[in-house]
Amino acid sequence: VKTRRINLFLSPGEVGEGTLAGHQVVAIDVLRASTTICQAVASGAREILPMGAPEEARRLAETIGRDTTLLAGEREGRVIGGFDLGNSPLEFTPERVRGKTLVMCTTNGSPLLSRLKGVETDIAAFVNLGAVLQRLTGTGGDVAVICSGLFGRFSLEDAVCGGMIVSKLSFRRKVILSDGAVAGKLLARRYSRDILKMIQGSHHGTYLAGLGFGEDLAFAAQVDSLSVVPVLREGRITAK
Amino acid sequence: VKTRRINLFLSPGEVGEGTLAGHQVVAIDVLRASTTICQAVASGAREILPMGAPEEARRLAETIGRDTTLLAGEREGRVIGGFDLGNSPLEFTPERVRGKTLVMCTTNGSPLLSRLKGVETDIAAFVNLGAVLQRLTGTGGDVAVICSGLFGRFSLEDAVCGGMIVSKLSFRRKVILSDGAVAGKLLARRYSRDILKMIQGSHHGTYLAGLGFGEDLAFAAQVDSLSVVPVLREGRITAK
Repeated sequence: VKTRRINLFLSPGEVGEGTLAGHQVVAIDVLRASTTICQAVASGAREILPMGAPEEARRLAETIGRDTTLLAGEREGRVIGGFDLGNSPLEFTPERVRGKTLVMCTTNGSPLLSRLKGVETDIAAFVNLGAVLQRLTGTGGDVAVICSGLFGRFSLEDAVCGGMIVSKLSFRRKVILSDGAVAGKLLARRYSRDILKMIQGSHHGTYLAGLGFGEDLAFAAQVDSLSVVPVLREGRITAK
Repeated sequence: VKTRRINLFLSPGEVGEGTLAGHQVVAIDVLRASTTICQAVASGAREILPMGAPEEARRLAETIGRDTTLLAGEREGRVIGGFDLGNSPLEFTPERVRGKTLVMCTTNGSPLLSRLKGVETDIAAFVNLGAVLQRLTGTGGDVAVICSGLFGRFSLEDAVCGGMIVSKLSFRRKVILSDGAVAGKLLARRYSRDILKMIQGSHHGTYLAGLGFGEDLAFAAQVDSLSVVPVLREGRITAK
């Protein structure tokens, strides 16, 4: 049996061409896209289409039909002008999103997910960590966990979340860890006991709290509060 | 007085356009370019010119004149065909390099240094950590420490080295740390007591030891063995 390799990419720029072939891929953007996508799927959204640019998102929503779609997204943390929803998970209630197609455009998560269009990708956050792990432990293939970060830079909350996945997958198992996975594991050990405090102290968390999104941080910090695994396949995110 | 910001970029892809303006910039490639550059400068090399591609390096060496130049560099860890030196610090003795211009072409360090041509950059490794810190503590400006990593990916040895710089600069001082700097500090705390073991366990260290470069790891792990600070200015590296 081949020893399982576990890779943690601490920022999206680390992912080179072809790196992901043959891997089970997981994408993380704790603040806030992957948390919000989990909540949207748990609230019964039909599908989520991640887009790179707002103009592109608007055109797609028009094409599909505005009666069945919602435009969601942010720039600099705030809802995009003319969009139906921002990027706060608290907005994605069953009342708003059930049965809808969400065309979504966020600063950090969406560009990564757009790049991953051709790759089946599980969407992970603290809120659905257990559900993601269950899917990953079901098979023994190599794993690639990718952190969205903040404007292409390392972000602590994504690395800790990724590190917790690495820790669980490598606990009492013989695996090969990438250097990033080793670092993530150490970060998880240091910070997993108080996720909310870690998020509040992070660069992005501090920024969002300053904009008045403190409740989003508390929402994002609730480990295993949702049991969904949103999966990206050919540009569409649906429940697994 | 403005509070000093300390940024640690854990992989080169994190460095965006304009990010470095107004910063004191430090570049790290422990295995092996920055260690080797320190050794070359300590051995009396006149200057080092980092180049992206071997062909470009060959042309430049011809233009300057082959009597005063040495071509140095590696691909996949091994000396490039027709080059005078590889990228092992042990080769860069005073007998070989004193008074010479080194045209240098390495896989990870050189592309980063080529990109930084317009930015004054200190070259750091474990071997000259104290000397670099002395330069950085002399002033109070914002700092950007950049890890070369391995093929654009996070590498443990660079992150630990960068984290040790962060730790020293932030000890008993009020500073603002980037998320990457926070992570680096934790890595430094975990690994700084046995640098050689950490390097030997890293992905790149394991690879180089397998090629027979185990002594290079031991050389690279010697904290403060050299007192030089190589500085990149307008494409040329010389002693500070």
